[in-house]
Parts: sequence; structure tokens; C-alpha cells
Amino acid sequence: MELTENEKAELVKKVFKRDLFAAHSELEITGLNGKEAVVEAAVSSIHLNANGVVQGGMLFTMADLAFAALTNYVHPMTVSQCASITFLRPASGKRLRAVARETARNGHNCVGEVRIENDAGEIVSVASFNGFIREDKAPQFSA
Amino acid sequence: MELTENEKAELVKKVFKRDLFAAHSELEITGLNGKEAVVEAAVSSIHLNANGVVQGGMLFTMADLAFAALTNYVHPMTVSQCASITFLRPASGKRLRAVARETARNGHNCVGEVRIENDAGEIVSVASFNGFIREDKAPQFSA
Amino acid sequence: MELTENEKAELVKKVFKRDLFAAHSELEITGLNGKEAVVEAAVSSIHLNANGVVQGGMLFTMADLAFAALTNYVHPMTVSQCASITFLRPASGKRLRAVARETARNGHNCVGEVRIENDAGEIVSVASFNGFIREDKAPQFSA
Amino acid sequence: MELTENEKAELVKKVFKRDLFAAHSELEITGLNGKEAVVEAAVSSIHLNANGVVQGGMLFTMADLAFAALTNYVHPMTVSQCASITFLRPASGKRLRAVARETARNGHNCVGEVRIENDAGEIVSVASFNGFIREDKAPQFSA
Repeated sequence: MELTENEKAELVKKVFKRDLFAAHSELEITGLNGKEAVVEAAVSSIHLNANGVVQGGMLFTMADLAFAALTNYVHPMTVSQCASITFLRPASGKRLRAVARETARNGHNCVGEVRIENDAGEIVSVASFNGFIREDKAPQFSA
Repeated sequence: MELTENEKAELVKKVFKRDLFAAHSELEITGLNGKEAVVEAAVSSIHLNANGVVQGGMLFTMADLAFAALTNYVHPMTVSQCASITFLRPASGKRLRAVARETARNGHNCVGEVRIENDAGEIVSVASFNGFIREDKAPQFSA
Repeated sequence: MELTENEKAELVKKVFKRDLFAAHSELEITGLNGKEAVVEAAVSSIHLNANGVVQGGMLFTMADLAFAALTNYVHPMTVSQCASITFLRPASGKRLRAVARETARNGHNCVGEVRIENDAGEIVSVASFNGFIREDKAPQFSA
Repeated sequence: MELTENEKAELVKKVFKRDLFAAHSELEITGLNGKEAVVEAAVSSIHLNANGVVQGGMLFTMADLAFAALTNYVHPMTVSQCASITFLRPASGKRLRAVARETARNGHNCVGEVRIENDAGEIVSVASFNGFIREDKAPQFSA
């Protein structure tokens, strides 16, 4: 039985509920389809660094979760192999929003870009991820 | 009055106690001198991803804190501009240990490498960071 | 006197005629406007590596030139600070085409993405560049 | 018949004579053993960018060749998957020298660092490469 897009998105979100570091960091997957994954966070004191702005590791974690959700939606199982991230402005405000899109894919390899925006829609950080696609179909995604 | 190496290390560690995301992630700066900074974590369930191994964002956060501690020891104030990270093997075990060293510096720019090891001393992840050195002397580091 | 878009593009292309490594590598800026820069190469034996496909350094050079042309069009003088590149498939065929777009900018810093495609329009390589914008107006760009 | 270290180094150097882009860029592998690979270039006008210093693509090509020589010495066949590079100071002078060392390896994946130095021994650029090891033994390396 083939899953609908919505059923598939719910399934992937459910799998990523088991990402305990993401949960501990209070991240939420708020959007997921074949085109993009969105991860959001309500910024609070737990996310800040010694300068009082959002810590770089928190931003990377948002990007990592968004890329993982997207790639495991479009081709499970995908694991991150390497990544690069740029911090363009101090991240602050009430909410942060990371949007992942896949740029290209070939065989077992894929590349995605993640943009993290603040309340004003300004890009605070841009990340690039490389994923390795381990198999065409993972057990937890078969209905 | 000039600070001793030990006093300076204690001061930098104290500043980074204010890194709330690092504290929330249960990271600790366990070594700091002019040559390297060491960050350690006792791995627990809060650090795991959906596959039951340590989350990539957690590894990045360890690397980020180690680079920040080192560079703010050797030339405060330094902020991370961009970084790349490779995940070489699944990270698991009881403890993880990130060691940051500065590779090179020129004017306002510096480059450092961070290696993260598991209990067996195997490298699980390697990261490279670029820092921008904002000023020669930050207020909190003057005695 | 304000330059037209075309005059500005011609001026930037003229400046980059002085990029001797790009010329030696037989690269050409074939498109340039405020949105994107395009660099093309007719692939020949000089571009190949020991495996008979286009060398990674050649691909990086295409990406670097495209990013430099774009950023020096939209905000001269911009210099590359750091970059990451992924090689997704062996690059071969008659022509390669690199397209650079700016993802975000803040103050003195900008981030751009470059995609390199083969004859079939398949992405062979994706690169991300960080630029530092040295001044608002470079001498050679004033009319 | 087992090859000696010297015979193996000569064999790898011979294979990389077929890297035509490296030859066109006037690069030479001047050192190669199990610990490091060294690539050197006598800087001339063909290597310069529009600002009259060595082009970023030229620096990347040196780093790429050094990493390829090293990794194909220690575990043929290795191909570069992704890389990051930082440009720390303008590269000029009479000679440039890139030294590649492997940081870590696990299964099919390896990570290496390349440092490029000028005549004065100052680091002008630092690069990090990820390689994928395709097989344990490549045909051209069997005696």
C-alpha cells in the first residue's frame, strides 16, 4: 500500500520525535513535503551563548534536523556526511525558522541547503549538507 | 596587572559558564591553555538522535565551544564566521572529548581544527572553524 | 555619472580579463547581471585529472570566478574568505557551466551558491562561498 | 611482490603525471610517503588573479592534488567527495608549497588537512578534504 504525502510526512515526523537532542533543544518540524522541510524554535534562554545571542551549535542543530527530515522524507535512509555553515548575523528574536531544500542528488549522494531566518525574515545563517543515501527504502517507511 | 596562564584560563571558563546552550547540552570545558582547549561530555539520552547515536548538532556544539574557548583565550574577542564538519563514524559510548587547536592566524582572521574522540580514542568527527578577531583586548579579560 | 547595467557588466568582465589563471584555464564569463553570474568552459584535455574526468581544481576555479564576478558586480570589492565544494558526479562532456547566485548579505559579509552543470543540465558540483566586502565602491568601478 | 615505499611513491607520482590540469597549472608532487604528500609550484603570471595575487582556484588545485596523491598512496582508489578551504592571506612570492596529511579514516571514508605555505613559511590557505575509498587495491598499484 502506497502512503499519501500527508501520511508519509506524519510518519517521518514521528520517527524524528525520537531525536532526543532535537527535543531537548526544543526544536519542532513544522513543515515537511517533497520540496522542503521547516524546523522552528521559540527562542529562550536555553539557546543562548555567552554573548546573549543564539549559540552556533543551536543553529547548526536546527539545520541538521531540517536536512535530516527532508532527505529521509524524499529518500530514506539518509545520513549526514559533512556540512558547512556560515553565521551571517547574530541570531536573536522570538522565533527562528530553518528551511531545507535539496539542491541535487546522484546515486547514493545528495546535497542540500538550509537557510535560517529570524522574525524579520532576515537570513542569519546558511548551511550546506552532504548526505549519503544508504538504501532505497527503510523498514520504518513501509506501510 | 598581567594575569597568569591559570588565572586567564579560569577567567575564560567563567565567561563560558554563561553559554547557556552549552550548559543545557551538558558540555564542560575540561582543559584550556595557549595550545588547546578540551570540551567533554558524559553521553546520555539527551544527546541522541533518532538512530540512537549522538546527534550531529551535539557534536558540532562541542566543536564550537572548544574553538570559542581556545580562540577567546588566545585572542579575545573572537567570533565564529563559518565552519565545516565531517561525521566519520557514529558517535556513542560513555564520554566524548573535543580538542581544538589553532592552525593559523593572520590579522583579524584565524583557522582552527577540532577533533572529537570517543572512549576508545577513535576520531568520530573533525571540524574546521574560521574565526574573526574583533579586538585585541575584550573588557572582561582585563584584570 | 551612473553606469547602465550593461556598462557595469562589461566593466566587471574587463576587470576579470586580468584573472590570468582563469584565462589560462580557458574560462569565460558568459553572463553577468545583478542576479547571477555565469562562467563557461569548453572542456578539453587540459582540464582532465588522472582518471580522465574534469579535475576538482578546475571545477573549483570555475565556481570561484563565477562568485567573484557576481559579488564584484553587486558590491565591489569583494574577496573570497572561505568556500566549500561537493563533487556529486564525474564531470565530463563538451561544456561546463557554473552559475553563481548570492544567497544573503549582511554588512561586510556575503554568502553565495554556485552550481556547475554538464551538457545534460545535470549538476556535477555545488559550492558555497563566503565573501568579505572591503569597500562600498572600488576605484575601477567609478565611471 | 610487495613494492618498497620508494617504488610505491614513484608509481603514484607516475599515475598523477596523467593529471593534465595539474600539469597545465605547473604543479609538481615533490614529496610523498605514508605520512604526507607535498605539492609545489613556482609562482608565475599564469597563476595570478585580477588583483595580481595567486588565484583561489590555483590554491585549491594544489590542495586537491596533494590530498589525492596522499590518499591514493595510503589507500587507492580514493576520490574527493567534498572539501572546504580558507584563504587566510594573499598568496604571493616565488614558490608555494602544499602539505597534505590524513587526519582520520574509517571504513570507506577519510578526512585530510592541507596547509599551503608561502616562501616565508606562512600559511596562506588551509583546506579540509573528505575522500571516499572505492577499493582496497587499484589495478595500477599492483606490481
